[in-house]
Amino acid sequence: MGLIEEIGVKAKAASRELCLMNAEKKNRALEEMALALSARRDDILAANHEDLDAGREAGLSDALMDRLTLTEKRIEDMAQGLREVAALTDPVGEVIDGWRLANGLEIRRVRVPLGVVGIIYEARPNVTVDAAGLCVKSGNAVILRGSSSAIRSNLVLTEVIAQAGEGAGLPAGSIQLIPLTDRESAKELMRMRDYVDVLIPRGGVGLIRTVVEESTVPVIETGAGNCHTYIDASADLEMAERIVINAKTQRPGVCNAMETMLVHEAVAEEFLPRAAAALRERGVVLRGCERARSILPGIEAATEQDWYEEYLDLILAVKVVTSLREAIDHINTYGSRHSEAIVTRDLEAARRFTAEVDSADVYVNASTRFTDGGQFGLGAEIGISTQKLHARGPMSLRELTSSKFVIYGEGQVRP
Amino acid sequence: MGLIEEIGVKAKAASRELCLMNAEKKNRALEEMALALSARRDDILAANHEDLDAGREAGLSDALMDRLTLTEKRIEDMAQGLREVAALTDPVGEVIDGWRLANGLEIRRVRVPLGVVGIIYEARPNVTVDAAGLCVKSGNAVILRGSSSAIRSNLVLTEVIAQAGEGAGLPAGSIQLIPLTDRESAKELMRMRDYVDVLIPRGGVGLIRTVVEESTVPVIETGAGNCHTYIDASADLEMAERIVINAKTQRPGVCNAMETMLVHEAVAEEFLPRAAAALRERGVVLRGCERARSILPGIEAATEQDWYEEYLDLILAVKVVTSLREAIDHINTYGSRHSEAIVTRDLEAARRFTAEVDSADVYVNASTRFTDGGQFGLGAEIGISTQKLHARGPMSLRELTSSKFVIYGEGQVRP
Repeated sequence: MGLIEEIGVKAKAASRELCLMNAEKKNRALEEMALALSARRDDILAANHEDLDAGREAGLSDALMDRLTLTEKRIEDMAQGLREVAALTDPVGEVIDGWRLANGLEIRRVRVPLGVVGIIYEARPNVTVDAAGLCVKSGNAVILRGSSSAIRSNLVLTEVIAQAGEGAGLPAGSIQLIPLTDRESAKELMRMRDYVDVLIPRGGVGLIRTVVEESTVPVIETGAGNCHTYIDASADLEMAERIVINAKTQRPGVCNAMETMLVHEAVAEEFLPRAAAALRERGVVLRGCERARSILPGIEAATEQDWYEEYLDLILAVKVVTSLREAIDHINTYGSRHSEAIVTRDLEAARRFTAEVDSADVYVNASTRFTDGGQFGLGAEIGISTQKLHARGPMSLRELTSSKFVIYGEGQVRP
Repeated sequence: MGLIEEIGVKAKAASRELCLMNAEKKNRALEEMALALSARRDDILAANHEDLDAGREAGLSDALMDRLTLTEKRIEDMAQGLREVAALTDPVGEVIDGWRLANGLEIRRVRVPLGVVGIIYEARPNVTVDAAGLCVKSGNAVILRGSSSAIRSNLVLTEVIAQAGEGAGLPAGSIQLIPLTDRESAKELMRMRDYVDVLIPRGGVGLIRTVVEESTVPVIETGAGNCHTYIDASADLEMAERIVINAKTQRPGVCNAMETMLVHEAVAEEFLPRAAAALRERGVVLRGCERARSILPGIEAATEQDWYEEYLDLILAVKVVTSLREAIDHINTYGSRHSEAIVTRDLEAARRFTAEVDSADVYVNASTRFTDGGQFGLGAEIGISTQKLHARGPMSLRELTSSKFVIYGEGQVRP
């Protein structure tokens, strides 16, 4: 048996016990994991320094280096995150629904853990701890597979939380990291249907595509966000400006930031110049369609590719549309089904937009930046699903569960 | 653009309109489809005769020929099935939950269609009509891909219901059959992520494995059922006999029939002879473990492979176990996570069995034969999911939907 399969076997065995643990025990483990992170801070920072040194040598970008960096504060945040997960309601055991059949059979649909969750993720070492915490709380064993740039940090983090968790009663194998970062080991994980119940890739478009293409384990697609804001003919333009600035500039590098702004032609001449001025003031570069450029001379031309782009940067594509229909069609054609907003005062436009736009999160008169498990009040977040199966939008503890029909009878047989 | 992609494009376009249709309109279409099946009965039977002739020439087994056969009665049953689906509650538009955030944002999670559903299925032409009816009712466009042995029947059935449905207002492309039955066309369907939101394979283990292996479109695994009944030390043996006979013989060729019987050693000597006699009387052949054979001399020995087998026939594997623990471990090792039952009078045994057995449907003192959307009162059934993602157990209309967050604000931005 190879190393990866061994990890799978251990995780499956752990999951059989984890699914039976009550919340008190799981919470105690989470608290111990949090304490251990603080206690082992120096070891974690030392390993992280090695990753950072290697990253510097490899010429990682500033953004990547920032994501890779751990500090005392960031370690405390991870510990705090575990405590917050401990405070959330345990989803396992919830009776989703139940009824009695005419023949007396009593049916209950009960929430149960998925079993073994695989997480494939890129640079940020905090995902190691966040994902492990959510999986433990929802009664799942977790197999983590991070990137090579963070391998030293991830190894220490996993050792610390797995040891502390097991010390507090988690079954051995509940939290495991694949210590290899080559393509083959990832591929093996993606094909371990016997041991892994679901794979959640967290990272860039390329990573997600690879997992979707190569995995035979069921996948929950997360993340890529080509988000739109549509300024309707009837929009309150002051509100529109506020929303657009927030959606683009409050944190441009994240998946729920706006990437394309659509403006109805009836308000384009009035709205575009003021919005453009406010955006430029905040460093945003615009790329426009023909009509947008005729109103905003000097901005770059948007190519077909721009409508597909998730810039994750201070760049915004701008298009003037002739109708709500055109806006909806544009979003459904080029969007990534993540988060979209309409700014409008028109009831029918709001209703049509929310009904016809095919995205996980559709807003009326609010910034797309709210798409987030924490913001929505769901508790911590394991990712944002942009597919339609199993979960859609921000995913938290419930989305890490399945269900089971439990049926009690007194000897019923089928006639 | 190739033929399969064209079908995908049409289906996606249809799905954009279908998702907005209210139940009245969809029900009218279903009623018209039902009427058309009766009206075009002769054409359907003629096409079916050609399939049957070809099947006879190709030497199909009696069981397959029976599945392939349409009769006036079976056509009426399909029409009746459509009427029953029309009578079910429309799942689309259901507000699953909703709340207001501290900042005033109003969040609702609303049930929406999946979009385009692909069904890959084997011989039985009634699946063509059943699946189309459920997809239409749940607001999904459907792409059907049946087997070559039923192609003539499927072509006529699809033509009849698609025409009738479109005549009653369904968008063109709502119901389509792939007219090719070669491997390449199936493979293309499995890779059309841009147009197909979910694939549901319905058929044997081989078909399901192929789809799971080759599909990049998300798949809901259905069907294979290696179901167990465990007779506990404390079982009411009369009840146990009744349940075992029902689970094995009431309809042996279906996925929720029992394939392995586990018997606690404390009752094996008393129970096995009487159960074996009753089963043999009904034509069941037993294959046993060492201990079972020492109690029932003359029965065949079960091999390791037998514990994995879904016989779908009057064959039963029998194993004597020393404990509840061994029974649960056996089921979790060899089972297909479909349906399992315990017969017991012991509360703790019942609770442990339902908690620890990792299957979609777990019974206490009842026959596994009840696992069925109709029996459960869910309405018609599109299949029985044996995976944990999205849906588990019998799937009906709700399981053909996704959800969407709809958020109303009044200018909220993220601080």
